[in-house]
Amino acid sequence: MDFQLDPVLAGDTLPVATLGDCRLLMMDDSRYAWCILVPALPGLRELHELPPGRRGEVLELACEVARRMAGAFSADKMNVAALGNVVAQLHIHIIARHIGDDAWPAPVWGRGQAVAYTPTQRGERLARLQACLEGLPAVSFPATKSRGP
Amino acid sequence: MDFQLDPVLAGDTLPVATLGDCRLLMMDDSRYAWCILVPALPGLRELHELPPGRRGEVLELACEVARRMAGAFSADKMNVAALGNVVAQLHIHIIARHIGDDAWPAPVWGRGQAVAYTPTQRGERLARLQACLEGLPAVSFPATKSRGP
Repeated sequence: MDFQLDPVLAGDTLPVATLGDCRLLMMDDSRYAWCILVPALPGLRELHELPPGRRGEVLELACEVARRMAGAFSADKMNVAALGNVVAQLHIHIIARHIGDDAWPAPVWGRGQAVAYTPTQRGERLARLQACLEGLPAVSFPATKSRGP
Repeated sequence: MDFQLDPVLAGDTLPVATLGDCRLLMMDDSRYAWCILVPALPGLRELHELPPGRRGEVLELACEVARRMAGAFSADKMNVAALGNVVAQLHIHIIARHIGDDAWPAPVWGRGQAVAYTPTQRGERLARLQACLEGLPAVSFPATKSRGP
């Protein structure tokens, strides 16, 4: 079974970077600087199901994304969360929060409707994210390497 | 500066275990099996501010708590999150979610009012948590060891 990004996640996001076997996505919601990190292993639902030898690397990567976004977006608080009640496929939200933002101080999920980026905004936000996330380490899952031709 | 548990966290929770320099708390809300892991280092607000040499251990500990709670409470989904918009002191929520629970599929924060355990329920839940979490590894922060008498 090959990895397929959940279609809801795929529909709600834009790709930012591929870091080995992890995909970094951006929510198409201009209200927040909001990334989602997806370890591209089929069938994963929970953080604790990540391969023990790679769990630390994935979590370190999430922390490093959070650290860089905190700086680039002058966040008042970072939110880092693996919930998955709606989309079960393991994905880690990394969100730069600001005092007074649309949901503050509540969590962002289920608060109001997403406000899609305009094409210009989208390009600018993607460029800004890609600049601040440049050089992030890749995380690979060796067990997946034997798949495919 | 010594570590002091945030008074809001202290008021909302009951202690479950002390794991070296990490405290494991239980939310006094009988609607959910809901633990909170607090690295007892003064001034911490973000996951990425954890000491680099200990960040992996803290996150592994959170994953192990999640794994055990998933089994002990037959969770449909675990929610693991560091938010901190209301209480800025770094704390990691680890919540066993069930399809049809009070907030499902929404996140638990800010949905309805907490339903405190009765004394009997509280004792039972604490015992059940302590049993399922027995033998968890301690995480110590060496830099804190020189503090105090």
